[in-house]
Amino acid sequence: MRYRVPFNRLVGVNFMDLGRLAGEVTATTGVELTPRDVERVIASVARSSHFWEILGLARVPYPAAAETIRLLQDQGLVQVDGTGAILLTAEGQAFVKVHALDPGQDFTCPGCGGRGLDLGKLKSGMQEFEELAKGRPEALLKYDQGHLTTASVMARVALMAERGDLAGKRLLVLGDDDLLGLAAALTGLPQEVVVLEVDDRLVHYINDQAAKSGLPVKAHKYAFKDQLPDRWVKYFDTFNADPPETLEALKVCLTRGLCGLAGAGCAGYFGLTRTEASLKKWHLFQAMLLAEFKVAITDIIDNFNHYANWGYLLESIGDDYPFAQVAPKLNWFKSSMYRIEMVSGFEGVENKPMSCELYLDEEALIYHPRNHGGTNG
Amino acid sequence: MRYRVPFNRLVGVNFMDLGRLAGEVTATTGVELTPRDVERVIASVARSSHFWEILGLARVPYPAAAETIRLLQDQGLVQVDGTGAILLTAEGQAFVKVHALDPGQDFTCPGCGGRGLDLGKLKSGMQEFEELAKGRPEALLKYDQGHLTTASVMARVALMAERGDLAGKRLLVLGDDDLLGLAAALTGLPQEVVVLEVDDRLVHYINDQAAKSGLPVKAHKYAFKDQLPDRWVKYFDTFNADPPETLEALKVCLTRGLCGLAGAGCAGYFGLTRTEASLKKWHLFQAMLLAEFKVAITDIIDNFNHYANWGYLLESIGDDYPFAQVAPKLNWFKSSMYRIEMVSGFEGVENKPMSCELYLDEEALIYHPRNHGGTNG
Repeated sequence: MRYRVPFNRLVGVNFMDLGRLAGEVTATTGVELTPRDVERVIASVARSSHFWEILGLARVPYPAAAETIRLLQDQGLVQVDGTGAILLTAEGQAFVKVHALDPGQDFTCPGCGGRGLDLGKLKSGMQEFEELAKGRPEALLKYDQGHLTTASVMARVALMAERGDLAGKRLLVLGDDDLLGLAAALTGLPQEVVVLEVDDRLVHYINDQAAKSGLPVKAHKYAFKDQLPDRWVKYFDTFNADPPETLEALKVCLTRGLCGLAGAGCAGYFGLTRTEASLKKWHLFQAMLLAEFKVAITDIIDNFNHYANWGYLLESIGDDYPFAQVAPKLNWFKSSMYRIEMVSGFEGVENKPMSCELYLDEEALIYHPRNHGGTNG
Repeated sequence: MRYRVPFNRLVGVNFMDLGRLAGEVTATTGVELTPRDVERVIASVARSSHFWEILGLARVPYPAAAETIRLLQDQGLVQVDGTGAILLTAEGQAFVKVHALDPGQDFTCPGCGGRGLDLGKLKSGMQEFEELAKGRPEALLKYDQGHLTTASVMARVALMAERGDLAGKRLLVLGDDDLLGLAAALTGLPQEVVVLEVDDRLVHYINDQAAKSGLPVKAHKYAFKDQLPDRWVKYFDTFNADPPETLEALKVCLTRGLCGLAGAGCAGYFGLTRTEASLKKWHLFQAMLLAEFKVAITDIIDNFNHYANWGYLLESIGDDYPFAQVAPKLNWFKSSMYRIEMVSGFEGVENKPMSCELYLDEEALIYHPRNHGGTNG
């Protein structure tokens, strides 16, 4: 970025170059950061003093955002008060003003939370879903769990219904701590829902609830690394997933989903965050979708998926950043909703066992040298 | 798609295979159609009887949708009544029922029209914009014109503002029959707006209005085929465009926009339809974005951009499909909003003159053997 007037001459703090700061963060964290990303972190601090809200607004992976805030503290642009609030100093405020940084006006539609979908028609379904979900197993770190809010689950279901991907169709759900399979079946639209899930607790829970309510949902134990059983290859019209966000895990998960689809015109739905995936990773992942999987991306809907807070967050992130050790005040963890569609001429992906060791990389919330060895696999 | 029960045994009409029908449409029109696309056309007829609304719902290029409806008429699944309404026959209704085709439930949020953005904060800006736009030049076929509704222009501006791409930034607008440059400047946020436009009428109109209102907007005459003048190379933070939808025109337009951006973290905004671009073309275009331009796609927001109806529509499409010769009852022509962002490590695109002859291909509204030669260039 061009900063036409040297910053030090204008606001009287030590010279600070956003590009150099971005480079320092990249060197420390291994996450590629741009000067504009640093701008966005500063602008997010101008809008909120709560660490987890700042992180959501900044659209930068957690380790890079936290390291940026630490360096901004060192530079005297940001301070943390006794309550853990993160605030701009006078120098920080001057910096925002001089660079006309947008403190991030919020234009989110209050009616739909920015998703663009009216869930009024699904109101009774939402109540039934909450009844079904009451006894759900607690989120576990070892399975990278953390489930969607009820509104987000129903919004995904509405999106599938609106696009004609649910009514009369066969739905594959790959991993389902969100209980999306049950939510989809509650609409009465899908012909059949198959849930493949590694966590025995969820397999039993989903099957119990489906049986009690007479829903066409069947859950089976399955691990991504295994090939998709033959009976489900090219069997489905639609898949849904919420994969861990390493490129390896994304590749394995998409391979399984696409193997399950019948052919051109069939669709896949999944979430991808900016909190655990840099835009550089988005670029690499999208290049994979286009070059290897040969699908078209039909939708990327920002902040569509909101996740309920999970119990292991503060413990799992380590204590490198004291200002991050505050309980979230809001459902801050969000992801973009991707919809992809198979196009004609698609050659198919090979259905084979694939190793998938890397459930976290340097952009993950729980990436940390000390626990890095213990959470994979 | 798998249709497990042969269709003819169930509903007593002649055997009709959606895959064969899709193949016939592809052979006639040159547009690749999937069986699911045919399903979507039928489901859209189940939801609306108005040709232009059906076309918008079906998400299939115009020539392919029209040819599909013609074949469905031949098959006895669809009929056109004396008022031009397109209706399912009894056989068509049975087909929809047997295949549990989703007639397309509408979940669009009434508050934001599905865009996810609350425009309440821009209300006074919208009124000022409508004043500024009152004397705008009429849309011309030769420039592929047809402008956004006021709500759509302001929603684009809101999206840019929310993402921090407008405040204190330099905005490049490539082609501007939408008058987006004026709308952006009315917010008071951008530092500078440069409009590059081939149509003299618009260059003069925009400069006149900007001067009268004291807005930081300057329009210049420019044709995409020319290289971007040196003074604007790497000069901008953000670009906006609404290119014609051939792959060639998309490539030239994106080249100009990206040449104008300063570097990683800078963003581009543009619309892409399903009415003039098949999902196959979307795939090829996205592959170009990833492999050649090395950007990341951050957003694809369905039906974000609504276009006001333009005077030359019925005349320009020819008379191959009599059922299409009805005046649109609604702003039916819509596009998805793309936001792309330059990622670090981007190598830059070459700024050179490029031929751009192909302003329409076989997926265009006005593609027609008889006028094909006369409208290019």
